[in-house]
Amino acid sequence: MCEAHPTGEIPPRSGVAFTLDRGQRLTVIDPCGEQVADLLAYNRHDIGEVLSSGRTLDYASRIYLTTGDPLYSNRSNVLLTIVADTVGRHDFLLTPCSKDTFRIIYGDTDPHRGCFGNLAAALKPYGIGPDQIPVAFNCFMNVPIDAATGAITVAPPLSRAGDHITFEAQQDLVIGLTACSALQSNNGRFKPIHYRIDPATAAL
Amino acid sequence: MCEAHPTGEIPPRSGVAFTLDRGQRLTVIDPCGEQVADLLAYNRHDIGEVLSSGRTLDYASRIYLTTGDPLYSNRSNVLLTIVADTVGRHDFLLTPCSKDTFRIIYGDTDPHRGCFGNLAAALKPYGIGPDQIPVAFNCFMNVPIDAATGAITVAPPLSRAGDHITFEAQQDLVIGLTACSALQSNNGRFKPIHYRIDPATAAL
Repeated sequence: MCEAHPTGEIPPRSGVAFTLDRGQRLTVIDPCGEQVADLLAYNRHDIGEVLSSGRTLDYASRIYLTTGDPLYSNRSNVLLTIVADTVGRHDFLLTPCSKDTFRIIYGDTDPHRGCFGNLAAALKPYGIGPDQIPVAFNCFMNVPIDAATGAITVAPPLSRAGDHITFEAQQDLVIGLTACSALQSNNGRFKPIHYRIDPATAAL
Repeated sequence: MCEAHPTGEIPPRSGVAFTLDRGQRLTVIDPCGEQVADLLAYNRHDIGEVLSSGRTLDYASRIYLTTGDPLYSNRSNVLLTIVADTVGRHDFLLTPCSKDTFRIIYGDTDPHRGCFGNLAAALKPYGIGPDQIPVAFNCFMNVPIDAATGAITVAPPLSRAGDHITFEAQQDLVIGLTACSALQSNNGRFKPIHYRIDPATAAL
């Protein structure tokens, strides 16, 4: 595809799960541009602890997060810190797209299982069930808000080919990661996502 | 207090839990004005199903909800519908305030347990644990957003004495409800919240 030698490639409309050790860095790369990747993180030693949009946005006093911002768990511990970001626009309001999203929003009669179904399947071997999937950190997803009405729009991602965001793990984690399955989120074309895992000591 | 004959009164900085049957209506009343009430709802027959901000905002394409808007669960079923609302400004982005909120945002050394602790205590008899507390629907909470930067502000509620919001249950539910414990959310004063439960047939 558009970029060589990633640790892993996530084919269009699919998802993976893997472990990330404290101190390791995860770089999520948009190899072709305008492609969203939904990211989840769980405390590997106690999967009841999971990424929390509500805690994170409250502590940041901001809905758009970027380099330097910590991502908190439902227990108010930092799970990941954003340490590099070439895009600067991601979403942390919306749950992963699902069969129901496609049924309710797109009117599909035979809907794809979406990022939700992909994450549920990928996380199952770690003992994580579908009810434990909260709002994801949606890398590269572009959701402008009309401040007066509160209307939200799912606009084309600002990411171009090769753009990336890097997270440093602050705990031992289970990560769920997708190449997003919703047409609108990805400007109408389903593309892969690449990711790279680097040791704690790697330079950015 | 400021309004007579509610079904229940929630004293300042406390919380309650109760059941609400499908079809019943719950009215949350701000008896003195400028007081927030955090609301949670669980499917009474399967508490793994809970209110989901991410699903609800995605399907509404709006972050500010009011009369006519359904509140969805993590399984994309409607748990509650807003059927009346005299205020029109509520928050559905932020998790209930907690010991950690007061420690991290306010720097308190001996922090109050907050809405999170109050909800956890009130929901415990229903078998609902603290890890099952997601983003709440924060009645009367006023959280303006700067569309350009994504900065969020916790501003004084727009509610005046006697203002209220009414929800109709679409499932048999367990409800958690607080009189919010965070100074900033309530314009610096902790006040009670009243609530009323009406049968399915009651006129609004």
